[in-house]
Amino acid sequence: MELKKTPADGMRDMLPRIVALRTYVMNTILDTYRQFGFSAIETPAVDDIRLFTGGQGGENEKLIFKILKRGEKLNLQKADLQEVDLSDLALRFDLTLPLVRFFANNRDKLPMPFKSIQMGSVWRAERPQKGRFRQFIQCDIDIIGQADFTAEIELIAATTQALTALNFTNFTVKINDRRVLDELAKSFGFQEHKDKFFIIFDKMDKIGIEGVQKELLDNQFPAPRVAEFTDFIQKFVQKTSSEQLDFMAPLLAACPEVLESIKTIIGSIQSLAKDRFAIQFDATLVRGMGYYTGTIFEIQMPEFNSSVAGGGRYDKMIGRFLSKEQIPACGFSIGFERIIQILEDKGFQIPNLQPKIALLYELRTDFEAVFAQAQAWRGEGKTVSLEQKQKNFTKQLDKLAENGFGAFAVYQKDKNLELKELKMR
Amino acid sequence: MELKKTPADGMRDMLPRIVALRTYVMNTILDTYRQFGFSAIETPAVDDIRLFTGGQGGENEKLIFKILKRGEKLNLQKADLQEVDLSDLALRFDLTLPLVRFFANNRDKLPMPFKSIQMGSVWRAERPQKGRFRQFIQCDIDIIGQADFTAEIELIAATTQALTALNFTNFTVKINDRRVLDELAKSFGFQEHKDKFFIIFDKMDKIGIEGVQKELLDNQFPAPRVAEFTDFIQKFVQKTSSEQLDFMAPLLAACPEVLESIKTIIGSIQSLAKDRFAIQFDATLVRGMGYYTGTIFEIQMPEFNSSVAGGGRYDKMIGRFLSKEQIPACGFSIGFERIIQILEDKGFQIPNLQPKIALLYELRTDFEAVFAQAQAWRGEGKTVSLEQKQKNFTKQLDKLAENGFGAFAVYQKDKNLELKELKMR
Repeated sequence: MELKKTPADGMRDMLPRIVALRTYVMNTILDTYRQFGFSAIETPAVDDIRLFTGGQGGENEKLIFKILKRGEKLNLQKADLQEVDLSDLALRFDLTLPLVRFFANNRDKLPMPFKSIQMGSVWRAERPQKGRFRQFIQCDIDIIGQADFTAEIELIAATTQALTALNFTNFTVKINDRRVLDELAKSFGFQEHKDKFFIIFDKMDKIGIEGVQKELLDNQFPAPRVAEFTDFIQKFVQKTSSEQLDFMAPLLAACPEVLESIKTIIGSIQSLAKDRFAIQFDATLVRGMGYYTGTIFEIQMPEFNSSVAGGGRYDKMIGRFLSKEQIPACGFSIGFERIIQILEDKGFQIPNLQPKIALLYELRTDFEAVFAQAQAWRGEGKTVSLEQKQKNFTKQLDKLAENGFGAFAVYQKDKNLELKELKMR
Repeated sequence: MELKKTPADGMRDMLPRIVALRTYVMNTILDTYRQFGFSAIETPAVDDIRLFTGGQGGENEKLIFKILKRGEKLNLQKADLQEVDLSDLALRFDLTLPLVRFFANNRDKLPMPFKSIQMGSVWRAERPQKGRFRQFIQCDIDIIGQADFTAEIELIAATTQALTALNFTNFTVKINDRRVLDELAKSFGFQEHKDKFFIIFDKMDKIGIEGVQKELLDNQFPAPRVAEFTDFIQKFVQKTSSEQLDFMAPLLAACPEVLESIKTIIGSIQSLAKDRFAIQFDATLVRGMGYYTGTIFEIQMPEFNSSVAGGGRYDKMIGRFLSKEQIPACGFSIGFERIIQILEDKGFQIPNLQPKIALLYELRTDFEAVFAQAQAWRGEGKTVSLEQKQKNFTKQLDKLAENGFGAFAVYQKDKNLELKELKMR
């Protein structure tokens, strides 16, 4: 019987050209993050299923790949067998929950504050569709143990520098604070149904203020207050981005430190952005995850109609593992697969790529001499692939060029080797 | 409720120091393999469970982590529910089966021969014990589509060069051929129970020739032939390794190309080994996997009482996916976790490591000025971590030194920065 050749639904085989691009992008991001004093850690792909089913993962909890129990633990004779009886482990669907567990487990060995880099695969059983994959890379930095805005500044500086190193320009960092949203909800009397209000307000970039207004009314928010709120937001969005923060200031009279924090972050980042990218306050930024407690931020690019990076402060999550204390934390995650897609669409070329040489030899040549020649070139730092010369020589050269070879030579006994350029046709 | 902090059984959290070592070793191996013209590919961690349950994986098939079916596919009401009804996907337990599927799926886009690098995690539900992990890295190179010994030479040259680049010396490459073992079995009349004979003979390095003799007799191999065989092997092992191949030659009269192949491989590799490592024929080398068809090889190190790398030719496996043809293939796999363990035991230090600087600041300092200083240093290529100065300053410095920081400076307004060395105490 012939076996199935294709990957499982939603999974990908990655060819050499795409692996080379992904590796280049990963190393560029890693090098930048390391320069900012972050260190890479790793957590296992598989963890106790209870880590992922505690309600912190939002919608992602519905997409968990569960691992079947093994040996005696798997009891199919159990009366009224339920799905929960079958699985003890799961594949991680993000890197934040494992990071928090990792920190709780290893904190005595880690410096404080702890600045981590994580780059690794996560798995989600999404309905397979174009551009959505069931295994994909996440790329996160986090600072654990730093309560003030200096963490936010370092996270945003490192992430924008990584994107700059990949030749991205003209992107915009949008910044808000969950406490701004809380005050907004409070001042219009929405605090009782705050979560529902946030979910609706989050859609503003898609459905506009009229759409938000309609949904608020549909959801029984009182009409006079919805009218006041709509009026406020309509005035707000007409301001320039630098005026918007001042316009919001009266709402934040009770918590001046929030305004101060946002202003300092914007000021520090602007000093390094120059004209390469922008940072601006955006009171309509909400972000989905329930665990954020303070600053939230996102990066948007003209090439992509959704965010390419996002993050924020989650000061209450580590306490779930350490019952006696809360430890502040803040993180930023680059949408690695989106970045790769944009670079591919642009036809991005990896800079300073080492040229590959194919050293071809005939079937009955003295192979030891060919091998010695290849080793001599490799000793000089050249990249050399030994390849037997094929009958269809033209096709062979085309295939080599397609696969990134820049030059070839044919070995012939007692003749000088002639290195010739290879070009894609 | 406090959540469980430790990783699941057999899984590992990896701290910054160990991730740095693993990354260095991976990159060193990758760079070497790329220089030999190999290209990295990736297959998904999760594949159709039927790929892994076809009988090619030997004992590993008992250790599969299976993934629970999702949604409507999971029917717990089915009468006489069996384990096989519950799972459609599995985590890969090696990289060879996915490679073969990958090649069959993508061959029209790949050069021929195709030289692949794979470095990735695999999962096995082994009984947790010291030094055995349920998730670990495999590191394979394979050449698909090259039928003769030139593939073996390139695989062995690349792998020994990668180990040399990691400062390993004094290791030994042992080489044999499944066809030598076949002829050996044939000439003593063991061919009918060849597989059982191989399993017993494979234990020779552990139980000696007397142990092998006893097990053969216990397993009903005829006593006179076992005596002849024992006598032959006792004479064989007394020869020097260079004489052993000639001693074996009469057995191989029917297949002179096997002798020729082994001799050419040994000759080519010796020419580059010089006195850094050795290569020798070993007729007692069997290797466990059922899929080998020709040359087999292994690398042994004095530091480790088992092999640290192994591989061989598997010319009949790709045909399982392509019913109309056979495509030759040969691979070499480095035991990545063993290499890491040896390097850790040796106290291996990563060469030319970029020193990290901690720039410390007091709580109420002008942070924008500190940040500008950090950015200026980073602009010069320095690695700088911004750290708030803590009450217990001595402890903070110790923790920084432990975590790989080589220098620090304390920012003070209107004072020159003084960079001081940090040392582990």
